[in-house]
Amino acid sequence: MTNAERKRPGRPPGPSDTRDRILAVARELFARNGIDKTSIRAIAAQADVDPALVHHYFGTKTQLFAAAIHIPIDPMDVIGPLKKVPVEDIGRTLPSLLLPLWDSEAGKGFIATLRSLLAGNDPSLVRSFLQEVIAKEVGSRVDDPPGSGRLRVQFVASQLVGVVMARYILELEPFKSLPVEQIVDTIAPNLQRYLTGELPGLS
Amino acid sequence: MTNAERKRPGRPPGPSDTRDRILAVARELFARNGIDKTSIRAIAAQADVDPALVHHYFGTKTQLFAAAIHIPIDPMDVIGPLKKVPVEDIGRTLPSLLLPLWDSEAGKGFIATLRSLLAGNDPSLVRSFLQEVIAKEVGSRVDDPPGSGRLRVQFVASQLVGVVMARYILELEPFKSLPVEQIVDTIAPNLQRYLTGELPGLS
Repeated sequence: MTNAERKRPGRPPGPSDTRDRILAVARELFARNGIDKTSIRAIAAQADVDPALVHHYFGTKTQLFAAAIHIPIDPMDVIGPLKKVPVEDIGRTLPSLLLPLWDSEAGKGFIATLRSLLAGNDPSLVRSFLQEVIAKEVGSRVDDPPGSGRLRVQFVASQLVGVVMARYILELEPFKSLPVEQIVDTIAPNLQRYLTGELPGLS
Repeated sequence: MTNAERKRPGRPPGPSDTRDRILAVARELFARNGIDKTSIRAIAAQADVDPALVHHYFGTKTQLFAAAIHIPIDPMDVIGPLKKVPVEDIGRTLPSLLLPLWDSEAGKGFIATLRSLLAGNDPSLVRSFLQEVIAKEVGSRVDDPPGSGRLRVQFVASQLVGVVMARYILELEPFKSLPVEQIVDTIAPNLQRYLTGELPGLS
């Protein structure tokens, strides 16, 4: 919706108008200040709505963030199960959760977001998600030696983003048509090494 | 150079005009038919120049391809040395050659090309390069069991493209500022496993 439409006289702002405004403000504040330092309350204030309305439309802050970057699921649906998985199984569980999601209809939004930031749009939203949510939730479990968790997760991210590139954007064959299980089985040991192996420069 | 400039009356078409025309035809034919099935002779014919002029401006077909996708080096400068490296060292040699290149001024063109195809432009040029040049030159050396070389190289490509994403596009910290050696040392064993390890589904 353009500004012109929103400000058209005689048309009162409806729910979808408010929803769009909250999303626009959320994108702006998340990109500028990161997820941690952006509160629902601050978003509500700048969008000129009650914080309760933000929760009503979008749920939690993570869910609002997911909506802001067009991820059609709650990231906690992936991160939640990961919390209960033994550390030595994360390398397998992570792609087992993500690949079917990316292969699904729901994954198209994620891939569209990735495309758009590669097109030169501001990567700070995705970076913030990786650095603040994933690094905190997953990185804290593999932070051995202390301080290494964040980098371990970034190496994992590099492999996973590369899988997205090869499968959905470059569409390499046979990679694109490989069964999910074969990709999971092939990359899992490499991801696990990044998570819990002895990596150079980390001791 | 814009069309308007090129067609300005009174200015005869100069060398840079011919060069641009050859590049445009090359991009079109490489994208449509792949590298293997596109000859210098076909490009010259469609650009209405002598094949010798194409060689004069651009050198070999691989060099012309590199120019067409804005890679400012001859890919054979990387692939050539790789041919002499023992197979068990390729996992380390490949990122040792590529990362300093990507970190350099010359790497900017490569990253710009990657960005543009992620923006939704046709990925067939890069796909063709990966599938026809890299898969042939590197894949043939790691084709064990027979037929697996192409997929092994695609897993390697997925990790390497992911490094480009994390370092130059998402600009994750500390990943972005890590010394080249630390990234090489960290990913080399994983690349080597893709190249020569026992991978699931390949036997």
